[in-house]
Formats: sequence, C-alpha cells, structure tokens
Amino acid sequence: MLFSTTFAKRTPSPLGGRPGRGFLLFIMTAIILVHCPDQPGIVARVTEFIHSNRGNIISLEQHVDRSVNRFFMRLKWDLDNFMIPRDRISDYFRTLIAAPYRMTFDLYFPETRPRMAIFVSKMSHCLYDMLSRWESGDWQVDIPLIISNHPDMQPIAGRFGIPFHCLPVTRENKAEQEARQVELLQEAGTDFIVLARYMQVLSTGFLLQYPNRVINIHHSFLPAFAGAKPYHAAYERGVKIIGATSHYVTGELDAGPIIEQDVIRVSHRDSLDTFIRKGKDLEKIVLSRGVFLHIQRKLLAYGNRTVVFG
Amino acid sequence: MLFSTTFAKRTPSPLGGRPGRGFLLFIMTAIILVHCPDQPGIVARVTEFIHSNRGNIISLEQHVDRSVNRFFMRLKWDLDNFMIPRDRISDYFRTLIAAPYRMTFDLYFPETRPRMAIFVSKMSHCLYDMLSRWESGDWQVDIPLIISNHPDMQPIAGRFGIPFHCLPVTRENKAEQEARQVELLQEAGTDFIVLARYMQVLSTGFLLQYPNRVINIHHSFLPAFAGAKPYHAAYERGVKIIGATSHYVTGELDAGPIIEQDVIRVSHRDSLDTFIRKGKDLEKIVLSRGVFLHIQRKLLAYGNRTVVFG
Amino acid sequence: MLFSTTFAKRTPSPLGGRPGRGFLLFIMTAIILVHCPDQPGIVARVTEFIHSNRGNIISLEQHVDRSVNRFFMRLKWDLDNFMIPRDRISDYFRTLIAAPYRMTFDLYFPETRPRMAIFVSKMSHCLYDMLSRWESGDWQVDIPLIISNHPDMQPIAGRFGIPFHCLPVTRENKAEQEARQVELLQEAGTDFIVLARYMQVLSTGFLLQYPNRVINIHHSFLPAFAGAKPYHAAYERGVKIIGATSHYVTGELDAGPIIEQDVIRVSHRDSLDTFIRKGKDLEKIVLSRGVFLHIQRKLLAYGNRTVVFG
Amino acid sequence: MLFSTTFAKRTPSPLGGRPGRGFLLFIMTAIILVHCPDQPGIVARVTEFIHSNRGNIISLEQHVDRSVNRFFMRLKWDLDNFMIPRDRISDYFRTLIAAPYRMTFDLYFPETRPRMAIFVSKMSHCLYDMLSRWESGDWQVDIPLIISNHPDMQPIAGRFGIPFHCLPVTRENKAEQEARQVELLQEAGTDFIVLARYMQVLSTGFLLQYPNRVINIHHSFLPAFAGAKPYHAAYERGVKIIGATSHYVTGELDAGPIIEQDVIRVSHRDSLDTFIRKGKDLEKIVLSRGVFLHIQRKLLAYGNRTVVFG
Repeated sequence: MLFSTTFAKRTPSPLGGRPGRGFLLFIMTAIILVHCPDQPGIVARVTEFIHSNRGNIISLEQHVDRSVNRFFMRLKWDLDNFMIPRDRISDYFRTLIAAPYRMTFDLYFPETRPRMAIFVSKMSHCLYDMLSRWESGDWQVDIPLIISNHPDMQPIAGRFGIPFHCLPVTRENKAEQEARQVELLQEAGTDFIVLARYMQVLSTGFLLQYPNRVINIHHSFLPAFAGAKPYHAAYERGVKIIGATSHYVTGELDAGPIIEQDVIRVSHRDSLDTFIRKGKDLEKIVLSRGVFLHIQRKLLAYGNRTVVFG
Repeated sequence: MLFSTTFAKRTPSPLGGRPGRGFLLFIMTAIILVHCPDQPGIVARVTEFIHSNRGNIISLEQHVDRSVNRFFMRLKWDLDNFMIPRDRISDYFRTLIAAPYRMTFDLYFPETRPRMAIFVSKMSHCLYDMLSRWESGDWQVDIPLIISNHPDMQPIAGRFGIPFHCLPVTRENKAEQEARQVELLQEAGTDFIVLARYMQVLSTGFLLQYPNRVINIHHSFLPAFAGAKPYHAAYERGVKIIGATSHYVTGELDAGPIIEQDVIRVSHRDSLDTFIRKGKDLEKIVLSRGVFLHIQRKLLAYGNRTVVFG
Repeated sequence: MLFSTTFAKRTPSPLGGRPGRGFLLFIMTAIILVHCPDQPGIVARVTEFIHSNRGNIISLEQHVDRSVNRFFMRLKWDLDNFMIPRDRISDYFRTLIAAPYRMTFDLYFPETRPRMAIFVSKMSHCLYDMLSRWESGDWQVDIPLIISNHPDMQPIAGRFGIPFHCLPVTRENKAEQEARQVELLQEAGTDFIVLARYMQVLSTGFLLQYPNRVINIHHSFLPAFAGAKPYHAAYERGVKIIGATSHYVTGELDAGPIIEQDVIRVSHRDSLDTFIRKGKDLEKIVLSRGVFLHIQRKLLAYGNRTVVFG
Repeated sequence: MLFSTTFAKRTPSPLGGRPGRGFLLFIMTAIILVHCPDQPGIVARVTEFIHSNRGNIISLEQHVDRSVNRFFMRLKWDLDNFMIPRDRISDYFRTLIAAPYRMTFDLYFPETRPRMAIFVSKMSHCLYDMLSRWESGDWQVDIPLIISNHPDMQPIAGRFGIPFHCLPVTRENKAEQEARQVELLQEAGTDFIVLARYMQVLSTGFLLQYPNRVINIHHSFLPAFAGAKPYHAAYERGVKIIGATSHYVTGELDAGPIIEQDVIRVSHRDSLDTFIRKGKDLEKIVLSRGVFLHIQRKLLAYGNRTVVFG
C-alpha cells in the first residue's frame, strides 16, 4: 500500500519535527484536483458523489477560465465514514465522474508525505530556508536526497542527515550524469524536484519524466530578464523594483507555468551587490512559497498557467 | 418591481459611461450570499437546486470558518433557462434550502444597479476617485445624492450632476440633521452609504437602519491608531509603514468589520505633511476597493469579520 | 524675469487650491541638482560656497554611482540672507563651482510653479487623478493646456477651466499636428509634458525639444511587456503580479529612464478585464507619483537611469 | 588595540564565509554617526574637516528632523591618506567638531566586525535565517554565543560551532540568570544582542547596559497588537494584513524605537495556524533586515524614533 510504504521510508527529522502528526490525529482525508471542459452541473454531480457516499466536504474551490472555457476544482473531504475504500476511490471516480465529463484528475491522500529531491549548486540561502522548514515540522514532506554539481553544500546536507550526491556536469558528461540523477531519484521514490538555484539547465528528456513536478526559482520578475544574469540586466535597465519567480520547469528556458512571484523596491542607491543581496531574500521566500503550495496539492498547471487554490 | 424601478431612477452618467450595458447584453444572472451552521451536504444540496432547475452556475465560492463552525457561500448563476421566475426565487430558496439549513441569505440581481449615497466633509480626494470610476462606467452603481456638513464639495457634485445637500452638524442639531439625512436617503432609495472622509460620527440609531451598509475609510492601519488624528499618532510613534482601512461602520468607533487594508512605506525623511499626502493615496484606493467589493456583492460580514469573495 | 512672468501667468485654481502659498509665507529657497565626475572635496566645496555666502542648507542629498564613477547631488537652501542675488546665482555657481568640477547643473526656485501640459486620449482615470491633486492645492503646478487626439476628455477639461485642444493624429497629418502641438506648448510656456495614457507615439524630433521633460505611464512592469497591449500579454503569460511604470520618454519606445514602478497581485481568478481594472489604479498612482517627483525637482536622469532624491 | 583584538577573537565561519575580506582588500574606512541641534554650516564644517585632512568621502547622508530641529548625519570616508591616525580620530573630532556643535557621535571602523549575541527560545526560523547569512559571509559579524531559556536550539548552535548557554528563567531565578547572562556577554566581548523570538522580558537593569543595542522582533505590526499573542488578537480582529516589527528594546514593552516593519496579506481563508505560518516568514526577514542595518551602522535612534540611513 502506497500509504504505509511512504511512511516507512520517511526521512527522520533530526530536530524533533512533527512527521508523525498524521498518525496522532489520524484524520484521514483525500484531495482531488480536476479539470475538464466547462459544462453545467459539474459541481452538483461531484458534490453529490461525495455526499451520497458519506464523505464530508472540508473545502471546495472551483474556477472557470472563460478564455478557454475550462473548469477547475480542488476538493478536500473527510474519509472517516466514506463508503468507498481508499484504494478504490480512484477507480470509482474515474468511472462515475471523470469519464463522462472528460475530466483529468489527480487524487492525493495528504497524510502521505510527498518525497522531494533538492538540486543545488553553490548557494545555501534557498537550501537552508527549505531545510529549516522541514526540520521544524512546518512542511509535511520527506527529503530523501540532495543532488549538486558542486561539493560545497555537502556539509549542510550532512548536518541535516540527508544523503548528498555530487554529480559535476560538463558538456561531455551531461547525458550520463542526468541518467545517474534519474536513477538516484527513482531509487529514492522521488515525487518532485526543487531546483534551489541549481545552475544547470535540465534536458527536455529529463523534464518529460517529471511534468509539472520540477520547481525552479528564477531570480527575476519573469518574463522580464529571463536567462542568465538577471540582476545585472535589471541594474543596467535602472528598474525601481526587482523580483523573483518560482515556476514549473518546461523545455523552454524560464517559460514554464508561473507559480508565485514577489518583488522588492530598489533605488539608485542600490548597487549590483545589493540587488543580489536583496534578491536572495526574495528567492528563498518565493521558492519556499511555491514548494509549499505544491506540497499542499494546491497547484494545478494547465497550458502555460497555474491555478493556485487558496 | 424593484428591478424596473431602479433602472428608471438611474442617475444619468454625464460623460458617456455605460449604464445601459446590462440592457444591451441582457445576460440575466442572480447572486446569492448565504451563511449557516456548517454541516455535511450543503454544497451538494444548493448546487443540485440550481442545476435541477436548469440554472447554470457561473461561479461558486464556499468557505468554512472552523473557529465558529460556520459555512459561507457566494453563488452566481445564469437565469437564462432557470425555471423559477425571478420574483419567486427568494421564496423557493427560503422554503427549500434556507429553512432546513437555518441559513441566512441575500439574493441579488447584479443587473440592478445599487444606489449609493456619499457623505463627505472638506476633502475631495476620495470623492473624485469614486465619481471618476462611476462616470467612466467602471462602477455599475447609481449615485442619487451627496450629503455634507460643509459646502466645500458642492461645486464638484454640481459638475457631475449629482444633488448635493449641505447639512451642517452641531452638537445641538445633530439628531435633527440625522433625521433629515435619513429622510433624504429614503427618498433617494439609497441602498448603502459611503463615508468619504466624513468627519462626523453617526449615531447608533442611524447606523441600525443601515446594518453592514455604511462603509467608512479610516486613515490608519486598524486597530493601530483608531480615533482622531491617526497620522499624528503614527508620526509620533515612528512607524515605518502607514496604512488605511475600509470597514463597515458599527456603533463602536473604528471597530466594525474590516473590508480592506493597504499600506505604504514611510521613513525618517517623511514629515507629518508627507504622511498625510501619502496617506491620501492609500485612503482613496482602499475605500474604492472596499466600495467596489460591496457593489459586486462580494462581501459578507459575520460577527466582526468579513468574508471577501474572490 | 522668469519668476514674475510665471507667477503672472498662473492658471487660477477653481476650487480654492493654494496657488499663492509661496507669496504668503515668502520663504524663498533655491534647489540645485548637479552631477559631475566623482572626485574628492565636492561636498566640502559646494557646502562652503553656500555657507560662506550666508545661505542656510535645508537639505542635502548626495550619491555616487560607483559603476560609472559619477557624483550626484541635490541641495536646497534658504535664500533669506544669501548674499548673491537670485538672478546671479547661476552665473556665480557656474564660474566658481561647476566649471572647475566639470559639473552639469540645474537651478530652480521652488516658489516658481512649473507649467505642465497634459496629453490624453480617451481614458479619464489618470487625468482626474492629476487634476484633483492640482485643484486641491496638493500639487504646486500650473496646467495651462490639455492636448488630445480625441474629443472625449473635453468636458472634463472644461469643468476644471483648462484650455483643451483636440488634434486628431493620422499617419498623414502627424508631422503637421506635432508642429501645432509644439506651437501650443510654446505659447503656453510649458516646462514639461505628461502623457496620461496618450495613445500616440511622439516623434524623436518632438522629444528632442523636451529632453527628460516628457513623462509617460506604461501599463506594465517594464521591461516586461513593452509595446502594445501589455495586459493581454501579461494575461497570456500567466503572471501573478502586474505592474505600471512611469518614465521619461526617449526616442526608443518604452525604454527611457524609469522614474517609478509599482505592482499589484493578480491570480488565476482574474480575467483580462480585471487585469485592466486593477491596472488602472496602478497607472494613475504610479504616474502621479512620478509627476510629483518631477514637480518637486527630485529627479535627475543620467544615461538611462534616474536618481530619485528623497 | 580594539581592531586587532576583535579580529583575533573572530568566530571561525564554518562553511567558507569571508571573514578575512577586509584584510585582503584592506581598504580602511571610517563611519561616523552624529546628531546635534540643527544650525547653519554643520555639513560645510564636517566635510571640510575630512577633506582638509585628505580623507575622501565615500558617502554622506544628512537629515534634519524639523519637528525637533535636530540634525543627523552618517558619513563614511576612506582612511587611506587620512592624516589623523585611526586611534586619534575620535579625540580630534570631539575637540574640533563635536564640542562646538554640541554633537553626539559614534565612530566605527567597518572592517572591525561587531560581536553579536543571539537570545532564542524554542523556535528556529529566525535563528537559521541569521546563522545562514553569517555562515555564507553575507553578514560581516561575529557570533560568539547563543543564550536560551530552553535546550531545544542547542543542536543547531552546535552544528554552526557556536557556544550555547541554556539558562532557564523562572520568576524566582530571573535576577540571578540575568546576572549570569551579562557575565557571559561581557566575557564574549558582545557589542549587541538579538532577541530571535526570545520569550522572556529583559529587566530594565539589563537593558540599561545595552542602550539601543538590543534588537527584538515582535510578531505584529506595532503599535497594533503589542504584548502577548498578537496573531490571536489579529485573527480575532479580522484584519486583512498582518505584520512584523523589529525594534530596539527599551524598558517599556514593545514600545522601543522601530527599525523595520513589513506586512503580508491575509484573508478570511486564513486560520490562526496560517497567520502564524505566514507570520514566521515576515518575522525572520524583518528581524534580519533590522540586524543587518545595525551591523552596517546605518541606524541612529533618537527619542523614540530611528533614522535609517540608506
């Protein structure tokens, strides 16, 4: 069973985080994310399905994108008295609801902690920001491994007891190293990947294995200053505000669905150095917000946009 | 019928706003705002009611406040093929849904423009901000009258063709002037009142006639600096950010349900004068955002809080 | 003499603004904005010049841009006991300070109200925002004329008693109409021009006559979404924040020195319509902030950047 | 000599931070922060003092608070060719400038790293935020000790190689434990103290030894929600924005000079739990910004306000 397996594999939380919280309260819930062509009656049909099977809806959020006439919904319900067994819910939902409405859906059990891999290069600010959230128990996630193209972050990984793999990437060995990365990710049962200022571009082949499951932080307010050295470009342009953007990674550089953005004021008194310093604060917060939304299963990417449920 | 009456009374929009837009497109819709004790099945029951009567849900947003175990919902649907006549919807809904669920509800037809009175004293910034939105057609609202305790704003009202009533208020004549205000408001068919930096406190007796229908702008980040001279107090305290708050007015000064807040940075370089100047920009934007939410029927006040639907 | 002429021509402020304030208090001050190659001793030399001539410094702000090794300063001082007559200050400063330090400078007497022309097309939000600030006396500026390529805003200009010139621009008559615009601007003694959502591109020839004296509002967070239809582009890209930018206009479209920017959050719940509506609030505030900085002589453009004094 | 002593005591930076940077570049500079009654000629006199002794001014920022008629200045200059020896600058400045102008001043040599103690209780988010900045070399500061009333953070201190002292505080032993704290702080040569969510109130006696040298983070937008449980109070009040405030600690609870504030939006969808979670991000960023300003000697507290130099 997926649930117990995942719990069994759980990375120990070194500082007394609260990984076992789910066990203690043991309120079992399910979350479903759906999208389909809009048509009358979807909400009524889905809520009736939950209700008539004795599920109690905890939260429901729906959205219709009129520009493409598409319906989106996130629904969370209590499984306590739900008549359909956990491992059959997906089948029943597919047959009874998804098929007739031509619906795409993902079903999650939030008590099951997702498994997140971190890719990092030489900078520690995003890494520490995520590890400290995890360690304190604020993030219900497992972190089975950290991969880097440089050895610099190894001591930090070590302190948190997380396996660290240094795989230096050159033009020549890139394909080979990516194959090794995929192998490590699969062995670790990785659900999604966070690029915490990882300074290598992943190949399209790699990305196709993790669609909408690789989250990157770009250090600009996209689409402004895509590509390399965005702070330099922003400084040259004389902007009065700089930003950061977390997004799902696609084959097109810095062009994937945007998850979260934020900005901070700069002025003529700022130098390139202070752009970079102020930007680092943005980067870590904007990345962590994006990752936390993903962990909570509040993100739904469609086309090049995201629906961010509240 | 309320609907045709309101259209007939519509204040002419002097600069080619779009008051008649509703007639042209003539998509008739209904909005219902409800709240009740939370219990299983509410969403399923309400959506089934709409759907089975051939209404098409345009948007649905629900919220449960776990701290008081209360359910809130805003639902908008298309009346095009709806089988229940407009003027019977309220009755049917009350009988079939609201009664069994002990639900409080308000039903609106958004093509009916609400009628808004403005109270103002000597400052024009909030007044202009609202009148220019109305004139351009951005706000689907009628403004049948402006009331002031000073004559200063009369020329502005005149330019926009809106009746202006100057009712100076003293300690002695306050009850009498409020009675005159209520008379004028009732004659004009006023739905709600906006205090656009109106420098008089309304009596509890007055406010009871317009529960959650009087919107004020307070020039501080409430609950900081409630009462008189908030910019002076903020300057004295040496804050680094100042704010403004739009809220429904209750009998307790500056303590009603908050609708919207926003802030702006200040520094040691700011004087009291620049606090006031920067604050005026906040005031007008925060008030207009709050009023626009009310016009769109996106606000639901419960206890001392508001649910602000998206 | 420029000073008395400008006062004589002053546009009357229809609602009791405070145009005569300078006369009443009659604290005469001067502001000088300078920039030059950085070198030791500039501040000491300039402040000694003011002090030894019995000027009292009210504020001094200096900045060195290390990336180009250039010194910038804004200095305001009291002329009360200043030994050099007003109309000789420029000469003396040039000879004694500016020449030896290879300094570029502008000298202003802030009691002299600058004369601002507004260019507008069909939208009123920026126009009202500026006119209401002017009318209330918050802006110490004269507005001798409004120019438009459409007649729509004429009634608003009329209400504020400001001459309105409708000069429709086509590809064929553009040069001719620009010549007429320049003629009107010169007759009115225009110091600077504000493009309040004016939907025509001004020619380089026109702009050369008003270097760093034409302020535009662009409805995006530049350099993202330069050019036409930025809200459409932002909506398509799925951004989570939209912005507006006020900047000096140069021959290169949307690429001039940025004065001020601000942003507001959007979400998947926003449509193109609500992008536009939220954006209008940004546009008017960001434009007015930029214009006010210019009126206060707090802006110094150098290369493609601005120094914004506090 | 203070300079070499401090360098000798420097805490080693475990992950390759850049503590020795000053030695490598060896650009020796001085910073002076001054305030005095405003009067003509101060800037001219001070800049002439620096210039005539062959100091090159790197940056100068002055401010006059008109409400109390007081002059403030921060001046940084290059000591390379400065004719007055480092250890005599203070004497000369006092005699020649400070005395005649009744000036209060502080002289710093920024290549000397200040020594910062951290007080913490059970939460790690602010602690990690500061330690990661220090470790990466972004903060030029030494951290000789961490003091806590609980043992929970000891492992984190250990990983960063920083001495950790657990001094549980009860009503009975408070005076005794504070005496022990002061002893430890003095032994460590502590320049200033950061309360990183330290949940004990320091006595006035303690604070008098560190005037404007104890920085606290309060988890509200002061002066709103001073005292205990600010998130609970904010949630009860139904605010739409929450904040955090870093400030110097004085004998009056949460009433000391404010250094920095920031805010984040909340909505009816937020619970008390999400207020706390969102607030933690604010707390760590607002505290770290305040501490960094202090480390850079950019803060000057006067009365109950701070001047924050740019």
